Amino acid sequence: MTIKALAFDVFGTVVDWRASVARDARIFLGQLDRNDIDPFSFAQSWRDAFQPRMNECRSGARPYNKLETLIREALTETIERFGINDEAEKGQLSWLADAWCRLDPWPDVTEGLTQLQKRFPLIALSNGNVALTLKLARYGEYRWDAILGAEVCRTYKPLPAPYDQAVEMLGIRPEELCLVAAHEDDLAAGSARGLSTAYVNRPHEFGSDEVHEPHGRWCWNATDFVALARAIPDPSERW
Amino acid sequence: MTIKALAFDVFGTVVDWRASVARDARIFLGQLDRNDIDPFSFAQSWRDAFQPRMNECRSGARPYNKLETLIREALTETIERFGINDEAEKGQLSWLADAWCRLDPWPDVTEGLTQLQKRFPLIALSNGNVALTLKLARYGEYRWDAILGAEVCRTYKPLPAPYDQAVEMLGIRPEELCLVAAHEDDLAAGSARGLSTAYVNRPHEFGSDEVHEPHGRWCWNATDFVALARAIPDPSERW
Repeated sequence: MTIKALAFDVFGTVVDWRASVARDARIFLGQLDRNDIDPFSFAQSWRDAFQPRMNECRSGARPYNKLETLIREALTETIERFGINDEAEKGQLSWLADAWCRLDPWPDVTEGLTQLQKRFPLIALSNGNVALTLKLARYGEYRWDAILGAEVCRTYKPLPAPYDQAVEMLGIRPEELCLVAAHEDDLAAGSARGLSTAYVNRPHEFGSDEVHEPHGRWCWNATDFVALARAIPDPSERW
Repeated sequence: MTIKALAFDVFGTVVDWRASVARDARIFLGQLDRNDIDPFSFAQSWRDAFQPRMNECRSGARPYNKLETLIREALTETIERFGINDEAEKGQLSWLADAWCRLDPWPDVTEGLTQLQKRFPLIALSNGNVALTLKLARYGEYRWDAILGAEVCRTYKPLPAPYDQAVEMLGIRPEELCLVAAHEDDLAAGSARGLSTAYVNRPHEFGSDEVHEPHGRWCWNATDFVALARAIPDPSERW
């Protein structure tokens, strides 16, 4: 199997959204004297509130909207749920909404991406919109060769179109594109479109320290990006 | 005026397509014992044959097709024009078609982009498709923060849509995006959509050593990317 390019899921796979959003939520909640609210629960509720909105876009019930728009709507819902909608000022909310542009990469990301990028083009294939994905990359000091995914396709993963579009735009065969993700539903959707797959274990992504042994069978099963760089063989020709 | 991101034309502005294509055309023509054909004329004819094809896509007479597809069609037309269609082998033609992935950056590009990229996201806003733009960046050892332009928009510059889409996707105001180009028609089209503009003088782009004083009035008028990096003021906030 020859891999010619790698496509990365971003949230949870490249960046630790949970701890990063909780860190900023803790600051926000402290400003409101609401230290009784667990910032990790706040982060989880906020993220959970994206999903029905993305589903509406997936089903066609509403047109495609950027993830940054859905993040702001979801924040409004979350502060209502926690009963703090009257306490937060506009500037504080705007700062908190931008927490999703300040997500720390997992510790192996800089070294792993640097090693992989010498050999492969690295494509962001995220549900994040282009500006958000770009801001995260500048914040984390890595850089994609290209940003594809939901906004370029105007459809959210795991619908087939973002995977198909990446293959088509790169001008390679599906199996030559390896999808890298910490989520098996993403890998399953990519695999169904013919992509190669690399599972990366991100125990903290699921809110615990447990190592999640994958249920599916993926082309590679790596502990982190540095291990992945060692595992994936060199392409026969460079881009 | 606050600039938040820079959008670059690529062919002629970042890379020297003329000398690079002529270099490979010289090798190709030598293999056919056709050293009587001037490789620079060959390169110019080939490039000229893109334009009516892009115009068909612009007008809607044919659907959007990737520039790499139009480049191959234009090569077929060019070798017919020079009477060498029966002499060239498939492998030689395929290698020559890929000359457009082997375009050398102008000498100031590496340093200029490095300096600019510390302060601004750098966006490719080219008529080249994503894979071609990506291959050129890997060949030239620079890297875009994001690749937008014709393929993401499915329309060729200088129609308004690629400029508008870049602004919309970046989530900034039009004047906060500075279009960098060596071609005044590109700058005029971007300016008409509200973008800021930087003219970069590329004398060799026009097949002579003459410095082309621009006819239009652009926000910046720079001799090269290093001079541009000195001229554009820092953004008030970093991404």
